[in-house]
Amino acid sequence: MSQYHHLDSDDASVGIVEKKFFTFAEPPNPMVLTSGAELGPVTIAYETYGTLSPARDNVILVLHALTGDSHLAGFYSKEQTKPGWWEIMVGPGKGIDTDRYFVICSNILGGCMGSTGPSSFNLATGKPYGLDFPVVTVADMVEAQKRLLDHLGIKRLLAAIGGSLGGMQVLEWSVRFPEMVAAAVPLATTSRHSALSIAFNEVARQSIMADPNWQQGNYHDGAKPDLGLAVARMIGHVTYLSDEAMRQKFGRQLQDKDAFSFNFDADFQVESYLRYQGTKFVERFDANSFLFITKAADYFDLAAEGEGSLAGAFAKAQAKFLVVSFSSDWLYPTSRSRRMVQAMKKNGLDVSFCEIQAEWGHDAFLLPNPRLSELLRGFLDRVYQEERATSGGEE
Amino acid sequence: MSQYHHLDSDDASVGIVEKKFFTFAEPPNPMVLTSGAELGPVTIAYETYGTLSPARDNVILVLHALTGDSHLAGFYSKEQTKPGWWEIMVGPGKGIDTDRYFVICSNILGGCMGSTGPSSFNLATGKPYGLDFPVVTVADMVEAQKRLLDHLGIKRLLAAIGGSLGGMQVLEWSVRFPEMVAAAVPLATTSRHSALSIAFNEVARQSIMADPNWQQGNYHDGAKPDLGLAVARMIGHVTYLSDEAMRQKFGRQLQDKDAFSFNFDADFQVESYLRYQGTKFVERFDANSFLFITKAADYFDLAAEGEGSLAGAFAKAQAKFLVVSFSSDWLYPTSRSRRMVQAMKKNGLDVSFCEIQAEWGHDAFLLPNPRLSELLRGFLDRVYQEERATSGGEE
Repeated sequence: MSQYHHLDSDDASVGIVEKKFFTFAEPPNPMVLTSGAELGPVTIAYETYGTLSPARDNVILVLHALTGDSHLAGFYSKEQTKPGWWEIMVGPGKGIDTDRYFVICSNILGGCMGSTGPSSFNLATGKPYGLDFPVVTVADMVEAQKRLLDHLGIKRLLAAIGGSLGGMQVLEWSVRFPEMVAAAVPLATTSRHSALSIAFNEVARQSIMADPNWQQGNYHDGAKPDLGLAVARMIGHVTYLSDEAMRQKFGRQLQDKDAFSFNFDADFQVESYLRYQGTKFVERFDANSFLFITKAADYFDLAAEGEGSLAGAFAKAQAKFLVVSFSSDWLYPTSRSRRMVQAMKKNGLDVSFCEIQAEWGHDAFLLPNPRLSELLRGFLDRVYQEERATSGGEE
Repeated sequence: MSQYHHLDSDDASVGIVEKKFFTFAEPPNPMVLTSGAELGPVTIAYETYGTLSPARDNVILVLHALTGDSHLAGFYSKEQTKPGWWEIMVGPGKGIDTDRYFVICSNILGGCMGSTGPSSFNLATGKPYGLDFPVVTVADMVEAQKRLLDHLGIKRLLAAIGGSLGGMQVLEWSVRFPEMVAAAVPLATTSRHSALSIAFNEVARQSIMADPNWQQGNYHDGAKPDLGLAVARMIGHVTYLSDEAMRQKFGRQLQDKDAFSFNFDADFQVESYLRYQGTKFVERFDANSFLFITKAADYFDLAAEGEGSLAGAFAKAQAKFLVVSFSSDWLYPTSRSRRMVQAMKKNGLDVSFCEIQAEWGHDAFLLPNPRLSELLRGFLDRVYQEERATSGGEE
């Protein structure tokens, strides 16, 4: 793929990909959400990579995190210089090998990257939903993904894989449609938010709602709540990094070597880095979507599917699990993953668990890590072989 | 003190106290700050408790943290129901025993509780300083306190005691005026901010500066940046608590038992708690002061006084140290205190160190803790006796 000169020569890419759309729940048959509210029509933006096998037994569904989208890997055009968000993991010969597997990624319900969300057009009012958009849950996101798979004629997933909020969707898939999921890989995630995680999300939401431009969510005709959203992103970003990562990356290094500004410009490199992250983010993300998606993450509690017991919830699961945590992730620490693993084991499930030593905090699952690539490659290979042995499929 | 019916009957209080003011650096003799900027006149609000001994050898200076003030203990009037911020520690027979010691607490330079700060009147412009106020440092705060002690005729401190930003002032006192400090007690503090601490402060500052009412700091004639300041406070507040404390206090408990709101009201108790903290804070604190004080904390780096070496900085110190950290404080973790203790020991200083097991995170130093009271009482008693033995003073 020599045309992608910006890629290392030894890096293979899925190349040019296309964002597609699937619409369902057209009137008069809306989607009924967890809350009881009705929503329709619902459009889901998605992309696929690799080739669906004739037996349709090589499907991997990747679920994205809070600010991700359907653009998992590759490029929309030759001009695009930045590949999809998991380019390091998804492609020919990579951890999730598109020479072997058919990979699907869709933008979550409530998002702002092509799927129906609060910035979508509301037929009932003739303007964007804003806060008229119903509060959706992780279960609603998964239901919409199920409808997409139905549409694509896919009855079983070789694996559902995702990190952070994507990991919550993996967990939800494993207990909501257990017969459809051969393997589940929740990365850097938790079965429910702690008070600390809820607190950070709430402060980020308050930052958006404190921006006068937010206008109770009706900002689509005027200035957007960019400043509030930027601060919200900065709050999130701080929680994604580890103390150690920040020390290594920034320490107390100054922007202007050796001299404090003695004003409120960015003195420290970490300050200008955060400001940049905030500013860059508002160019691509919708403030209301941030509100709705963080709310869905806060509401998520897998134990609720087991009447308060996590083991009870996993009693429904049939998948083989690979649970991965990262040593420096203080947002969803390893102890949270271990608790899930214990609950899975109580049900006699086939569980592999790995805590990867990584210094980059919660974000580690998105960064290049040979260990994670090898783990995924090996686990998927085993599951794929076992699936084919069971179903009597041939090489 | 039966008139204080809101106090437990076995709780003694210093009772009614008075806020006093000391003004110096009158034109044409301004205070020259670390930055080189000049400031004057400078007023420092302060309070005293207990009685100064004839030998003037029983003086304890308490330094307050980010949002504290000079009102350490007692009440301004019989009508006041909430005592000073360290009532649990300062009073007759308490950890800092006002029957024995003469205790002074002043509002820091740059603050908004009576001392000169960005909300003070600027003689040069005829209006509040706003961002015309010069960026002050922890060293500047300490210099102003030194001027206050000179005014009060106090040449030596039995002890300087403070937590968090107050602890930074304690450290600064110990190396800036070593001959004046018999004992130094830095609590829950650090010799400099990590990138993570700077990051949280920066996001909080951005939240204030993102509020359109902030108006580049010139909000004194109009609406104040209350929303931005409230979010800033919430960010800070989350970092002051521990994951465990939040789990115990709130967990995932809902405001409205058993039911999600499916809107953006506060669902979880931790959410309404944070909103309350934010709202309450703006009633008493100035947004610009928040900017200036957090900047001073970020700039603070004791090692700079030792040409980059912490041990070099403490080479100047003569005080006996009691260093205290709290096990669940993730903002200024115990490892930071240990590093200071090592640097003190390299200089052969008399150092006691204690990590107190406490579940309340960084805020633990402000909460009732018999262990901390006993530690302080015992340490102060030892130092007081040793001081008097050295000086030949009598009981």
